Formats: sequence, structure tokens, C-alpha cells
Amino acid sequence: MGVKEIKAADLDTDKFIATQVAEIKSAVGDGLAINALSGGVDSSAVTLLGHRALGDRLKTYFIQNGLMREGEPDRVVELFAKLGVKVKLVDAQDEFFAALKGVVDPEQKREAITQTFYKKVFGRLVKESGAKHLLQGTILTDIDETAAGIKRQHNVFEQIGIDPQEAFGYKIIEPVVQLRKDGVRKVAQALGLPASVANRPPFPGPALAARVIGEATRERIALVRQATVITERILADVPAFQNMTILHEDRVTGMRNNKREFGLQLEIRCWESVDARVAKPVRVPWETLEALAAELVAKVPGVVSVTYGIAPKPPSTMEVV
Amino acid sequence: MGVKEIKAADLDTDKFIATQVAEIKSAVGDGLAINALSGGVDSSAVTLLGHRALGDRLKTYFIQNGLMREGEPDRVVELFAKLGVKVKLVDAQDEFFAALKGVVDPEQKREAITQTFYKKVFGRLVKESGAKHLLQGTILTDIDETAAGIKRQHNVFEQIGIDPQEAFGYKIIEPVVQLRKDGVRKVAQALGLPASVANRPPFPGPALAARVIGEATRERIALVRQATVITERILADVPAFQNMTILHEDRVTGMRNNKREFGLQLEIRCWESVDARVAKPVRVPWETLEALAAELVAKVPGVVSVTYGIAPKPPSTMEVV
Repeated sequence: MGVKEIKAADLDTDKFIATQVAEIKSAVGDGLAINALSGGVDSSAVTLLGHRALGDRLKTYFIQNGLMREGEPDRVVELFAKLGVKVKLVDAQDEFFAALKGVVDPEQKREAITQTFYKKVFGRLVKESGAKHLLQGTILTDIDETAAGIKRQHNVFEQIGIDPQEAFGYKIIEPVVQLRKDGVRKVAQALGLPASVANRPPFPGPALAARVIGEATRERIALVRQATVITERILADVPAFQNMTILHEDRVTGMRNNKREFGLQLEIRCWESVDARVAKPVRVPWETLEALAAELVAKVPGVVSVTYGIAPKPPSTMEVV
Repeated sequence: MGVKEIKAADLDTDKFIATQVAEIKSAVGDGLAINALSGGVDSSAVTLLGHRALGDRLKTYFIQNGLMREGEPDRVVELFAKLGVKVKLVDAQDEFFAALKGVVDPEQKREAITQTFYKKVFGRLVKESGAKHLLQGTILTDIDETAAGIKRQHNVFEQIGIDPQEAFGYKIIEPVVQLRKDGVRKVAQALGLPASVANRPPFPGPALAARVIGEATRERIALVRQATVITERILADVPAFQNMTILHEDRVTGMRNNKREFGLQLEIRCWESVDARVAKPVRVPWETLEALAAELVAKVPGVVSVTYGIAPKPPSTMEVV
């Protein structure tokens, strides 16, 4: 493709923002554009760039897939409202859980979410909106990983169910494709995003469905969501690239009120990493790990055991699913 | 039952041994006795007490159930040979794996092993031997736990398939039933057992089948056996009540040679405890945990992830199965 990288160290954020805003204006003209905001730094930066260029002619949607962390959809919508950007919240929970029903294989689970997102929900929004321009938060690392075969390449139009014939006239705009994560974080801050968003630890596309081994039902997602609140609070001050709370499918023997309980196990992973290519477990202080385990078994129904991931990536991966 | 406890602090080992040897002699007369030796401290002490009392008229069997740790059957037989006790090794692996086939529920798994041990293998040995006296390593804690409903009470004769009518004339002898584990350890050392046996950390009756979540096949037992060698070596100098290596049934995503691998996960537990009633995870030095994880993923085929148990008992239990 020949995308020219802009390294974070060489990045002049004011100049970059001016250039991208101008390019979006020129590409969209007096038409409409559309984008999906996840709340992550990439799509947040793109939303603000698009809004600077197009104002209300950029239609921004937050798709509530039912797999987000506690309070996340409202938090994102409120934050952007404060920044003057109206984000439309689309409740698509039923569609996602229907697609996930009975799916246990990790790859199939990810595929079900991708398909539901693009083909069903976002595809419908694109068609209904009349927008011919799609803004996407692709970054250079995504391009590299597709080339290396780690991520699968998709024709976006095919994904959203728009036939290549019919697709004539549609256009993808990727304003941050020359940047890596550290560059996007700089741009995000320059655009006025608070540090909590600009420096937000990465969160996977399949969201909490990636944090459940086996079927991602509403009940299991609710359980891992509740556990994630506890983990993120207790590990908030532990420096890390990312932490995660995983619900296992295996049942383990436990004991409560002197009775055997064939219960649930949660796994905590807390990664030290520069760019997620390699990673090792953070040496979290024992008092913190013990407090975390104690609160998880006390508050999350049915949990009798908690483990901490101690293997490095590779051969582990960051996520379990 | 009214068993009179002898506390370890009050225990005069010479006197205790003399009393028990005399009682065994008097009970068995000029008949034969039989016992099953597992290599644990209780059955080891009973074997030596019985041998002092009866010499070759005590028939001692080590039942190789295929679920032991690496080299354990030979090590036990050789140790007792050095102590002048001939132990007959009985290969019953096929019977145990046949009984475990398709069994995934923890309670059913334990039951399958108990049934195979008593009804099939040991029951057959008792009948063939002509012995009417069974020596058992029951300790006071076993009696307490049966009374408390934590362990199930069994009529041993029923278990080994000897009808109560027919059982007339059979007798159970429990020489260490007045002791707890600490008392048995003192007696074991006074009987000449090396410290490695007298102070051996507890190992569960279902052996490595308790260290496998899901079906205990030959292959899965072999894998957890190999991993256990590594864990026991690396944690040898970490003071603990017990450590264990558990093979999970859940598959987790990993990466090897730049390719995705839907691999295996091992869990390590290392307990600090006085009497196993309550326990908490040992704060194992991070360098040790990291070295352990690195060696497990490098040497045990298919393992891509390792975790360390951080929840206390209760609500966890020591064993996972």
C-alpha cells in the first residue's frame, strides 16, 4: 500500500490535525460521512478530526453490543457531548447475543461479533444514513498485522454487505493510518481528549466476549463485567500496559459455609509491554493480589477460585480468547 | 466411636510403637494380615508397625494405579526393600483407566478410583491372600472428617465386596488411629523412615487424577506428571504445606513460531497451611514463579499458559478436583 509512517517523535500534532481536517473536507465535499465510535483512542481521535472537518455532517454512532464494560456506553456519549459532538447510541445487544448463542470457539466468537457489527448493524446504519464516506480508525500497526497474516484482511464494503458494483461511489477515509498507537495518543490529546481517553489501555474489539472462555451469554458477560470493575479499581495504581479479568469455563471445587461448591474460576492477567508484541506479567505486589482475590470471591457470585497469569507472551497471547 | 487422642506433644514414640506392635501380634495371632501401601506417611508407618509385629505374615501391596507421580512406585518399593520389607507391586493401570474413561465430574472421578481400588483390585488381593486382618492407616483427622460429613463413611468390607455375613472373621486394625498427622510423622521417624517420607507433603488419594480438570486419560495424566516433576523441582526450596500442578480442560489462545496455537493451561497452587483446614497461597518469589512458567511452557507439549492460584481456602479448596 505504501503508507508513509509518521513516527511519534517526529509528529507535529497541529500540522497533522490541520492536514487531516483539510483532507477529510476535500474528500467529503458537501456530502455526509459516518463513523462508529468505540471509545478507544483511535476511533475517538478520528471522531474529533471528522467533526472538526465536517461538523454535523459527520454521523457518529456508538454501537451498544452488550459486551462493554460497566457504564462504558453512557460515559463515552457524555464525554463527547461535553466536547460538542453528538453521538447516537444504538442498542444492538439482542443481535450480538443472538449471534453469540452456542458459539464457543474463540475464532468463531470473534467472527460472529465482526459479522454482526459490520454486516448487520453498521451496514444497516451506513445504508440508512445515505453517507458515502466512512471514517475509520485504522492505524499503521493494523496494516502491518494484516500484511503479516496476524489479522485477517477484509474488504470493508464486502463486510458491510455492500456489493463492489454497488460500492461505486463509497469511500473509506483513514485519517490516522500513518500513525502508531503512541502517535495517536499525542494527536488525541492535542484534539482535547482527556488523558483518561488518550492514554486508555487497549481494550479488545470483541470486548468482554474476549474475557469469557466458552459461550458469551448475557449472564456470563454480566459476571465478568462485575469482576472487571473490581479488578480495574484494585489494580488502578499498578503500572501496566493492560489488565484483564477472565471467566473460565472449567468448574473447580470450592467450599462455602462448610459445603462443597462446584464453582467458578476467574483469571487475572496484568501485562507489562511496550507494544503488545511481547509481554510479561507484572510483578503485582502480593498484598494487592491477595486483596483482589479476596474481593472477587466475596462479591462475584459463584466464584471460588482466582488465578494470576504468570507465563509470558509468547507463547501466551495477551487475551485468552 | 470414642477414640482416645494422643497429642504429638504427649507422644512417647517408643512406648507407642511397642504397644501397637503387641496389639497387632495379639490380634493376628499366627494368621496372615494384608495392607496396601501408598507411600504416604500414614500407610508407611502402618506397614513398618505391621512388619515389626508379623514379619512376612504381613502381605504388603503397592497398587500401581497409573496415577502416581514420576518414578513413585519403584521409589517406594526400593525404599521398603532397604528397610527389609518386601512390597509386592501390582500393576492395575488398565483397570483404573477403564474406570475413569469418560468421567469428568470430580466426585464421580474420586468415586471411580475408590471403587476400583477397593472393590476390584484390593478386594481381589484380600480374597486371594487368605488374610483375615486388614491393616489401615486411618488417622484421627479421617474420623473427625467422616463425622463432620466432609469425607464419606464407608464400611470397608462392603467396599471391597465382602458381604457382612461372609465378613465374619475379618478384622480391621488401625494402629495410628489415635494420632494426627504430626504424631504419625514422629512415629514414622522413630520407625526408621527417612525424613523424605516422614515429612512428605500430603498427596491426594486419587493422585494425579485430582490434578486434571475433566477426563483423566493416560495422555493427560502423563502430561500433568511431567509438569509436576518440573514444579516440584523448582519449588523444592519454597517452604509450603503442599504444592500442586493442575491441567485445565479449558483451551486458551497462544502463539508459537508466529502461529496461533489453541493450547493448554496449567495452574500452580502452593499452599501455606497448618492443618489444611484453612490455607493461603504462598508468596512465592517472582523470579521463581517466572522461571517455573518459562520451563513449563518450554518443556510440556502444548502448554501456552500458566497461572498461579491466589485465592485462599475457603472458599477455594486445596485441590481443584
